[in-house]
Amino acid sequence: MTLALTGGYSAVQFRYPAELSLTVRKIANFCIGNLICAQYRFMDGHYLTVAHWEGDTIMKKINIEANTYVYPNPVTLVGTEVEGRANFMALGWVSRVNAKPPLIGVNRVHYTAKGIQETKTFSINYPTADMVEVVDYCGIVSGKKVDKSDVFEFFYGYLKTAPMITECSLCMECKLIDTVELPTNYFFIGEIVASYTEEKYLTDGKPDIKKMNPLLLTMPDNSYWTVGEFAGKAWSIGKKLKK
Amino acid sequence: MTLALTGGYSAVQFRYPAELSLTVRKIANFCIGNLICAQYRFMDGHYLTVAHWEGDTIMKKINIEANTYVYPNPVTLVGTEVEGRANFMALGWVSRVNAKPPLIGVNRVHYTAKGIQETKTFSINYPTADMVEVVDYCGIVSGKKVDKSDVFEFFYGYLKTAPMITECSLCMECKLIDTVELPTNYFFIGEIVASYTEEKYLTDGKPDIKKMNPLLLTMPDNSYWTVGEFAGKAWSIGKKLKK
Repeated sequence: MTLALTGGYSAVQFRYPAELSLTVRKIANFCIGNLICAQYRFMDGHYLTVAHWEGDTIMKKINIEANTYVYPNPVTLVGTEVEGRANFMALGWVSRVNAKPPLIGVNRVHYTAKGIQETKTFSINYPTADMVEVVDYCGIVSGKKVDKSDVFEFFYGYLKTAPMITECSLCMECKLIDTVELPTNYFFIGEIVASYTEEKYLTDGKPDIKKMNPLLLTMPDNSYWTVGEFAGKAWSIGKKLKK
Repeated sequence: MTLALTGGYSAVQFRYPAELSLTVRKIANFCIGNLICAQYRFMDGHYLTVAHWEGDTIMKKINIEANTYVYPNPVTLVGTEVEGRANFMALGWVSRVNAKPPLIGVNRVHYTAKGIQETKTFSINYPTADMVEVVDYCGIVSGKKVDKSDVFEFFYGYLKTAPMITECSLCMECKLIDTVELPTNYFFIGEIVASYTEEKYLTDGKPDIKKMNPLLLTMPDNSYWTVGEFAGKAWSIGKKLKK
């Protein structure tokens, strides 16, 4: 999709296939300070915002589908017991939600939701990148149809109904403290009761992300990635910009 | 921290500095099928779970601080208006929480919380890795003390109170639909009203994570990272394990 702006605001010309250019529709004009902006909608659902300043284009943003939530999120495996049997599913929608006590929110769980509701417990496990095939398998196959209790070696901690995966680099056992009901999903909030790792993943007593080598997931391209290059120290590298 | 197991369960010996070995305390025994497990607590707060099976050690997990939530989370900037002035803060605790409509949860916001509560809107912006210094700056400096409205060029979409950052690769404007109050944090749930990107970040019309080059954050080592190597296709690479 290419857009050319020739001259002023009213002379916008789209280098677009003829059949599409017919369906371009201006839907909004608005101003940001000195900027004059226009929004256009294309037949294919894309939006385009164009901003002019003294006749030049200075911004070109495409309004894409609202459901475009691109994220490199950590790929985790959720462990539950459903009807007394261990089950594991792949999960990318996970986030810390509270500092003290340490609370975590997990989401978009299907068969797993049943186990969380039954036992009020669950585990979050971080696979290493070399587990990518089995992780993906746990995301493809539902525990409703397939017994996944023999996919991994697992262990228990304080909570007796939150199976944790031995070969994962970090395992957290969680106690359900709240459930937020959303239109298509549940959002489960759990307190992290204990976290487990191994000596080989630590540097100076702290988990070392390069040793853990976790997987990331991006959508909508549906790809797994590893963690790349170090890019700076947090709460530090920005200090030089302080006035 | 090195642990040696000589012989059976009762003959566990710790190759540990003498002053620490004195403080090792067994806190629990439990069984997992054929496994006999024991948990030990060390003076420094570490836990260790040891499992034996027919006299051999088959698992060695260290129980570390429960607050160890290691994550490569995407680093985002939250845009709000507080008392009529644009403000931006760095945020790592963010996750999708619902499929349709597309809902997103954001968390651990401070001065920003005020803006979200006032306007019922906010934006989520994905910086590129070369913005690391200014991103970190926005995480260090509170809008309560410093005017951050001149840090970025920004624009608005449909919502007139959710400033979005022009130089970010993906901007999402969100309408607040729910607030979950947690012990130390708010968890804000917003509907993504529209997402904005640029042609240069797309491949075949879809956001391309390598072109967007986002930042990741890990804790407790407090480091920024880029996205690394492709590790497989999701909902695909695991198919070969299907029986």
